[in-house]
Amino acid sequence: MVKASIVPYDSIIIGAGPAGITAAIYLARKGLDILVLTLDIGGQARLSTDVENYTGFTMIPGEELVRRFKEHLDAFKIKLLQEKVKSVKKEGELFKIDTEENSYWTKTVIIASGKKPRMLKVPGEEKMFGKGIMYGAVFNAPFFKDKSVAVVGGGNSAAQAILELSNFTKEIYVVNITNDLTCDEILKEKVKEKKFIKFYNNSRVISVEGTEKLEGIEIENVKTHERTHLKVSGVVVAMGLEPSLDFELPEGVVLNENNEIDVDQNCLTSVEGLFAAGDVTDVKWKQIIIAAGEGAKAALSAYEYLVKKKEYLEEES
Amino acid sequence: MVKASIVPYDSIIIGAGPAGITAAIYLARKGLDILVLTLDIGGQARLSTDVENYTGFTMIPGEELVRRFKEHLDAFKIKLLQEKVKSVKKEGELFKIDTEENSYWTKTVIIASGKKPRMLKVPGEEKMFGKGIMYGAVFNAPFFKDKSVAVVGGGNSAAQAILELSNFTKEIYVVNITNDLTCDEILKEKVKEKKFIKFYNNSRVISVEGTEKLEGIEIENVKTHERTHLKVSGVVVAMGLEPSLDFELPEGVVLNENNEIDVDQNCLTSVEGLFAAGDVTDVKWKQIIIAAGEGAKAALSAYEYLVKKKEYLEEES
Repeated sequence: MVKASIVPYDSIIIGAGPAGITAAIYLARKGLDILVLTLDIGGQARLSTDVENYTGFTMIPGEELVRRFKEHLDAFKIKLLQEKVKSVKKEGELFKIDTEENSYWTKTVIIASGKKPRMLKVPGEEKMFGKGIMYGAVFNAPFFKDKSVAVVGGGNSAAQAILELSNFTKEIYVVNITNDLTCDEILKEKVKEKKFIKFYNNSRVISVEGTEKLEGIEIENVKTHERTHLKVSGVVVAMGLEPSLDFELPEGVVLNENNEIDVDQNCLTSVEGLFAAGDVTDVKWKQIIIAAGEGAKAALSAYEYLVKKKEYLEEES
Repeated sequence: MVKASIVPYDSIIIGAGPAGITAAIYLARKGLDILVLTLDIGGQARLSTDVENYTGFTMIPGEELVRRFKEHLDAFKIKLLQEKVKSVKKEGELFKIDTEENSYWTKTVIIASGKKPRMLKVPGEEKMFGKGIMYGAVFNAPFFKDKSVAVVGGGNSAAQAILELSNFTKEIYVVNITNDLTCDEILKEKVKEKKFIKFYNNSRVISVEGTEKLEGIEIENVKTHERTHLKVSGVVVAMGLEPSLDFELPEGVVLNENNEIDVDQNCLTSVEGLFAAGDVTDVKWKQIIIAAGEGAKAALSAYEYLVKKKEYLEEES
């Protein structure tokens, strides 16, 4: 079916963490025609336990803060679709966004897709989604009672996973790319007290094995190149976060060395009409209140861009 | 009295609007020794009626939001002094802040002093504080019943002042530096419908007169240089906001053309150890949620600066 004409959105916001939600609220209040594309609501804020530094709330659990964000979003009846974005392309003056389901046209785009736990990016990994591979933290630790589990990483989230698992599992393998744990000293001491932990330092995972459920991993020592096979029922990948940018970006978008989108102080990217806000950008500090503020900036910058564009078009005609 | 030794603060925050309060909360949570110097709490946020865009609160009056900010500040038992800052100077590695009452030493400074209504800066003005001169908006309009009042400015806040006064006063003089009102069209129409309004366009105030109470102003047409004396009981100065920087800044602080402090994306100024956040900076958009986010950034940048400094000192010794 060919559409006779396309009415583009004024703005499409990718992501609905604190940055995306705030951007949506600001643009909705301006009366713009907007759409939010996201797979979840709340982003990393959902995972915070007790938030003590979101100004105005002396203490609020992350989940409750996200519930309030959602309520705020709903108050403006903002159109939100749970679709996975595949690509954002600039075509002439407009942007075309392809999701796995549909295509959308829009005058501006605000990328607020946040960060997500880093993946192993090795063969067999994707097949084990939901079958014993976990990202960022342990889910359902009692399930691993008397089983062997590998924790990949050496920072604070890896240490926390080790400590949580140590109450249940019979054996923990720690696969860590550096020489020693890099977590806080206090956590390191606690980890080293535990028995049944076997450390594989200077090592990385090279494949994940299993058919119906996770059966093991193969690891490699990056110095000796020695390979080892570990029989495990679970893998906790705790290698930190990375920008959530698993979709094609328009040509010319500048990223920094951490693959974060380069933005200026007012959330402009290197592509006209494309804005970015929150954890996905090169703003150094990743915090809920900062992401919310950046979302407001991106929205106001997008609005200004649209107003200028309109004036220009009216002068032309 | 000469003090034997000075223990400097880790950070002194100037101002307690959304940016200053958030910065204070972040630094207090890091366990730093901080001090907040401010004349009021809440900044411009106090003057907002219904805030609909502070993410997490679907709708909250500005006053109530400020009350919650204050509560949040109090929860961390942050030291706050109501003193007017006169100067911030860098002396060696430290900063010295002089207020009208005292002197303080600190390792870092976060300027979050916000914006304030622009003043006339003409002879006689300061003498009339509290005696009939108002800034930004009309206070106690019924007081001016059957009296003559001058409104200085031509934007939205001037138009709102005119409309509010028009219910009470017998004569309103509008002193406006431009050719015509610059407020929104809808306000302009309403203003032009009113009687008893006399417009002095292309004009500015050159002096304010009065002894015990306000008696009049002298104005000048900037094109013809003709001067006129207006007998008024009140003056509403509605000429917009300007950065609240009526104290001496350290040498080398870069300001933009609007006298706002030039900051980078992480709230660093051009002087090491000096940070700035919120409406006082050259971040384009002035919003409560943005100021709060910027305050968090400034705090984390100041903390990072202190940590690096400490490492450096330890290496040296």
